[in-house]
Amino acid sequence: MSNTFGHLFRVTTWGESHGDAVGVVVDGCPPRIRIDLDDVQRELDRRRPGQSEITTQRRESDRAEILSGVFDGLTLGTPILIGVWNEDQRSKDYEHMRAKFRPSHADYTYQAKYGIRNWKGGGRASARETVGRVAAGAIARKVLAQEHGVEIVGYVKQVWTLAADVDPDTVTAAEVESNIVRCPDPDAAPRMIDRIKEARKDGDSLGGVVEAVARNVPPGLGEPVFDKLEAELGRGVLSLPACKGFEIGSGFGGVTMTGSQHNDPFYNDQGRIRTRTNRSGGVQGGISNGENIIIRAAFKPTATILRPQETVDVEGNPTTLEGRGRHDPCVLPRAVPMVEAMMALVLMDHTLRQRTQAG
Amino acid sequence: MSNTFGHLFRVTTWGESHGDAVGVVVDGCPPRIRIDLDDVQRELDRRRPGQSEITTQRRESDRAEILSGVFDGLTLGTPILIGVWNEDQRSKDYEHMRAKFRPSHADYTYQAKYGIRNWKGGGRASARETVGRVAAGAIARKVLAQEHGVEIVGYVKQVWTLAADVDPDTVTAAEVESNIVRCPDPDAAPRMIDRIKEARKDGDSLGGVVEAVARNVPPGLGEPVFDKLEAELGRGVLSLPACKGFEIGSGFGGVTMTGSQHNDPFYNDQGRIRTRTNRSGGVQGGISNGENIIIRAAFKPTATILRPQETVDVEGNPTTLEGRGRHDPCVLPRAVPMVEAMMALVLMDHTLRQRTQAG
Amino acid sequence: MSNTFGHLFRVTTWGESHGDAVGVVVDGCPPRIRIDLDDVQRELDRRRPGQSEITTQRRESDRAEILSGVFDGLTLGTPILIGVWNEDQRSKDYEHMRAKFRPSHADYTYQAKYGIRNWKGGGRASARETVGRVAAGAIARKVLAQEHGVEIVGYVKQVWTLAADVDPDTVTAAEVESNIVRCPDPDAAPRMIDRIKEARKDGDSLGGVVEAVARNVPPGLGEPVFDKLEAELGRGVLSLPACKGFEIGSGFGGVTMTGSQHNDPFYNDQGRIRTRTNRSGGVQGGISNGENIIIRAAFKPTATILRPQETVDVEGNPTTLEGRGRHDPCVLPRAVPMVEAMMALVLMDHTLRQRTQAG
Amino acid sequence: MSNTFGHLFRVTTWGESHGDAVGVVVDGCPPRIRIDLDDVQRELDRRRPGQSEITTQRRESDRAEILSGVFDGLTLGTPILIGVWNEDQRSKDYEHMRAKFRPSHADYTYQAKYGIRNWKGGGRASARETVGRVAAGAIARKVLAQEHGVEIVGYVKQVWTLAADVDPDTVTAAEVESNIVRCPDPDAAPRMIDRIKEARKDGDSLGGVVEAVARNVPPGLGEPVFDKLEAELGRGVLSLPACKGFEIGSGFGGVTMTGSQHNDPFYNDQGRIRTRTNRSGGVQGGISNGENIIIRAAFKPTATILRPQETVDVEGNPTTLEGRGRHDPCVLPRAVPMVEAMMALVLMDHTLRQRTQAG
Repeated sequence: MSNTFGHLFRVTTWGESHGDAVGVVVDGCPPRIRIDLDDVQRELDRRRPGQSEITTQRRESDRAEILSGVFDGLTLGTPILIGVWNEDQRSKDYEHMRAKFRPSHADYTYQAKYGIRNWKGGGRASARETVGRVAAGAIARKVLAQEHGVEIVGYVKQVWTLAADVDPDTVTAAEVESNIVRCPDPDAAPRMIDRIKEARKDGDSLGGVVEAVARNVPPGLGEPVFDKLEAELGRGVLSLPACKGFEIGSGFGGVTMTGSQHNDPFYNDQGRIRTRTNRSGGVQGGISNGENIIIRAAFKPTATILRPQETVDVEGNPTTLEGRGRHDPCVLPRAVPMVEAMMALVLMDHTLRQRTQAG
Repeated sequence: MSNTFGHLFRVTTWGESHGDAVGVVVDGCPPRIRIDLDDVQRELDRRRPGQSEITTQRRESDRAEILSGVFDGLTLGTPILIGVWNEDQRSKDYEHMRAKFRPSHADYTYQAKYGIRNWKGGGRASARETVGRVAAGAIARKVLAQEHGVEIVGYVKQVWTLAADVDPDTVTAAEVESNIVRCPDPDAAPRMIDRIKEARKDGDSLGGVVEAVARNVPPGLGEPVFDKLEAELGRGVLSLPACKGFEIGSGFGGVTMTGSQHNDPFYNDQGRIRTRTNRSGGVQGGISNGENIIIRAAFKPTATILRPQETVDVEGNPTTLEGRGRHDPCVLPRAVPMVEAMMALVLMDHTLRQRTQAG
Repeated sequence: MSNTFGHLFRVTTWGESHGDAVGVVVDGCPPRIRIDLDDVQRELDRRRPGQSEITTQRRESDRAEILSGVFDGLTLGTPILIGVWNEDQRSKDYEHMRAKFRPSHADYTYQAKYGIRNWKGGGRASARETVGRVAAGAIARKVLAQEHGVEIVGYVKQVWTLAADVDPDTVTAAEVESNIVRCPDPDAAPRMIDRIKEARKDGDSLGGVVEAVARNVPPGLGEPVFDKLEAELGRGVLSLPACKGFEIGSGFGGVTMTGSQHNDPFYNDQGRIRTRTNRSGGVQGGISNGENIIIRAAFKPTATILRPQETVDVEGNPTTLEGRGRHDPCVLPRAVPMVEAMMALVLMDHTLRQRTQAG
Repeated sequence: MSNTFGHLFRVTTWGESHGDAVGVVVDGCPPRIRIDLDDVQRELDRRRPGQSEITTQRRESDRAEILSGVFDGLTLGTPILIGVWNEDQRSKDYEHMRAKFRPSHADYTYQAKYGIRNWKGGGRASARETVGRVAAGAIARKVLAQEHGVEIVGYVKQVWTLAADVDPDTVTAAEVESNIVRCPDPDAAPRMIDRIKEARKDGDSLGGVVEAVARNVPPGLGEPVFDKLEAELGRGVLSLPACKGFEIGSGFGGVTMTGSQHNDPFYNDQGRIRTRTNRSGGVQGGISNGENIIIRAAFKPTATILRPQETVDVEGNPTTLEGRGRHDPCVLPRAVPMVEAMMALVLMDHTLRQRTQAG
């Protein structure tokens, strides 16, 4: 449960942000898939702190090692262990966190639940836990792309009040990677970057929205009741740190339409059944219909800021938390590979599940 | 997987909308809890079709029977089977669905996945499947209320463009039940009802938003990584038919704030650690912090409408679907007990899970 | 967990022996399989009390009803609910059990675990719980036979000290059903029957061994570590009431051989890799090798006897339990379909799991 | 599934015998338990190859590292990762295995299942996989002993035809460790050792039986249907390499008794309900009754021998496998910590599960 995601493509992450290492065990990956360490490393580099001037400056090289499950470059069908050693463990940066609960962080809830916490950083609540997710997601993406032709692209759709105009049906990964904020709208991107720099200078932080699309997904993925594809995608994305909302297709905006405006008419496109509009976001009744799957995730502004905040200490006494050290003014650029990873994990799991449902 | 929800309080629903019966098996309910059939029936009556002039007029009495797991009025700790016999199976109403795929329904995706479907109604994709969820949710609510003092209240927050003004911290179940649209805002409710009647007359349908609050939840529920409380709640709610979006606390709206505006300051309220604001929605780092848990679910307008629509038949030929029979102009009033049920199932499951984490 | 068996072909049994009904939900059955109620009923009749003079005389017709999951005779891929109404609930026969713990029954342990029990009969610990397993097993056998050509045959190998001589590679179901003790050895069967009649007259009971074989199982079923086929078969069989031991292939007897005597040499049988001997019992390293899978299950003598026994009452006071009512002098003939059912459930589950492991 | 054991105390092992490392992730361990690396290392040393002259001479120091989940010597409630680097990877010893299937090994079945295998040693089928189990089991034993007073002792009960006389109610760990064969019967032990030395000289191998007892287990552990304690223990033990049989209490021997001989009378022992005999082996109806839990596991003679054997190569051609390199003449002494570990994992899991069943 807790630290495992997926039923057939099962991903178990491990490691605290300021322990020795973080990583993942991937169980259930089909055998004889060619896995290149570079595929994993490329995604980890997109998730890595310190990759640009608008992310946290924590210094981690995040070099991945694969310790099991791959033999002569091919998967064995056995568990794949990937580990990344932690390097930048400036505990002194965190000494002030030992005694005080950071507002809107997991410090207090962890302590309430477990009666103990690794106060050197966020432990399992840290975004560092997502190293394992992104590594596992890289494997899932490789299998999905190579074996099934599925392509996943995520991007920053909004930062603070600045929204981008992006066509999910045509956007490319190269466009996303063309700037450090990972927003493929050339007008919005520079304004987002400027606003993030301003927030950094203020010691403040910004939230936003990541949108992601999966293209070339075959009809039939997903299960009709509790494991609807949107429910699984939602669970995966909402389990990312700082995520407060999820929607698919028309989402919250769709509630202002009537049924006759909202329904997606079917038509026959040269032998393939398609829909003229895609307000369903590629999923109907919990099952993919072959159209592009489009989701959005809302991320609140990062909780760590460098401004004084009202809080209590571990004994419950009122106190002020003085911001210090490094902070991530906007997690959105790094959240893109995280959202893509969760989407890949869900689609991979359901690709395997679908194999068990053939008559 | 597929038809089961929960890890320790495990709910498995069964039954097609036009089969003999629908129902649920609840496994993992603690023993020696007093269960009253009336508690279950009350919730089923709130979910029942035909309960008012603004819901579908399908006639189902939805009388529940408990066939196992309860002895002399007390739970045994064994599986509780609850069944409801289907009554109103006017298959002829559905004959036109045999050959044509209804737009934005699960007809096509089911057929694509399984190569077979019960075309008499939506089968498992029908809202009828939620009978089992609501029955199980009623048991969970009873245990949560009786053993833990947790109270869950849901209500219609928005229909189409009509939004209500409701204070989640004080709203009562009686206020919700005071009108047929289940909206506790006395100004908005009549306008919503009128709009739904209009949609019914038009043969059209409307979507909206359900908001729900859980009060008196202790700190410590939820798990820090994949099974964050918001991820579990999101999965549960997004698995309801027609749900396209989920948010907790500040949700999508929170992204336009800065961190210093958004963070919830801690303070000591006569020995209890509380937060001054509740933009977190009662959950921090995936774990409850003791504040009210507040969620919202977006429901698209119901797919079944009584107007002609473009579609294809099962051979893929272009055709027009002529609406006929009965339709539900707005699922929102009936969605309220469904959302409450999913919230109860998640909180019940995590209440049991929390017992395994004590040191 | 508790009341569910299997990962992809998931079987959840429900119902107390003296509640309203018992039954099962089968989730994960592939779609478009022809299911005949007779297939289910035939197996239930083999499990049924009162079927012959050497089993318990409790009168149950055990008529199965399928309430969901099958449409026009074909599986839908949705949960299959099968129920059997309880008829013979002579609670007065059990009144004496209310206050006293029956030795070697589950009365005391249930009470210790749950603090409550349905004292009218054994509740979930009763052999009546296996109605659901046998019904689900019948479906699994049908799929295995029809889609994969797998044949499962079980039989009584030993009663008390009376052992039978049976060749698992050639024994037929007709031979097993040719006598009421379900032992296909024509010499041993009448002696077993006589011994059981004697035990019945004595108010005593007998144990024994069931052996079962699965033929035409393809190589590759089973998983290499915790879900080894022998571990899964062992778990399934050991979860049957009164089962105290399990072995596969050479089992406990094999420990007196040396490796050079025990190893099964491989040879090429017209293009198919086979083993000359089958001490492995069809499984090597947890994975089927294509040879017949042969297992044995030890059943202790039934705990219910009609002789006075030392025990304590629910307050812990010493007392004597006077046997009365009906008893089952030997569960072995009825255990045969139970063992076959568990074998079928495991093989069906792993047949689906194997589909997810293709490269 | 595959590589994970347990529901609440979840153990996932990873690593091939000739990959870089082997290890385990333990998820669900309660927080604030003092874990000493020495506790883990002690058990690994008992499992280690080369520990005495009667085991395999493969040289592995098997030094454990804990990379996550423990902070200042206390568990955090987060996943505990334990790794052991492989050292003695003499691939050339295994070169002959590349092309030929070793009889009664998993070589052929792995290849049939996955279409690929790490032919350098047994991969996941190797006893080396049990490093992770024994490490996890050490943690479980620590929690069980420290928090619940449960004591687990295993020992060699039989080697080949040589059976030992041991009283499970009084045997001590010190007696077990007093000789290299781990048999606490001072008469049988030297004869077993001599017989194993003889087998080693012959290039042959021997099987045997491990018996294990858990003392001071409270009543109420285990679940009444599929997850009966004997079913879970059986699954765990039968998933160990080379295990072909499992029994609890009277086991296969009990079938020759009548019910009146076999039933365990209850009596009141100064306020505690006990049984006069323990043919149930501490479990009734799948639930512990407070008496000692006694199990036995049959291990076949190790498949690797140093004598020529008939087999086929990977193309299916008949050939002879010439034994060479090192072999383990008798796995029994090293199987003792493995059986203890599986027993500990099952009891730990059910200790947590029992917490969720209180009323």
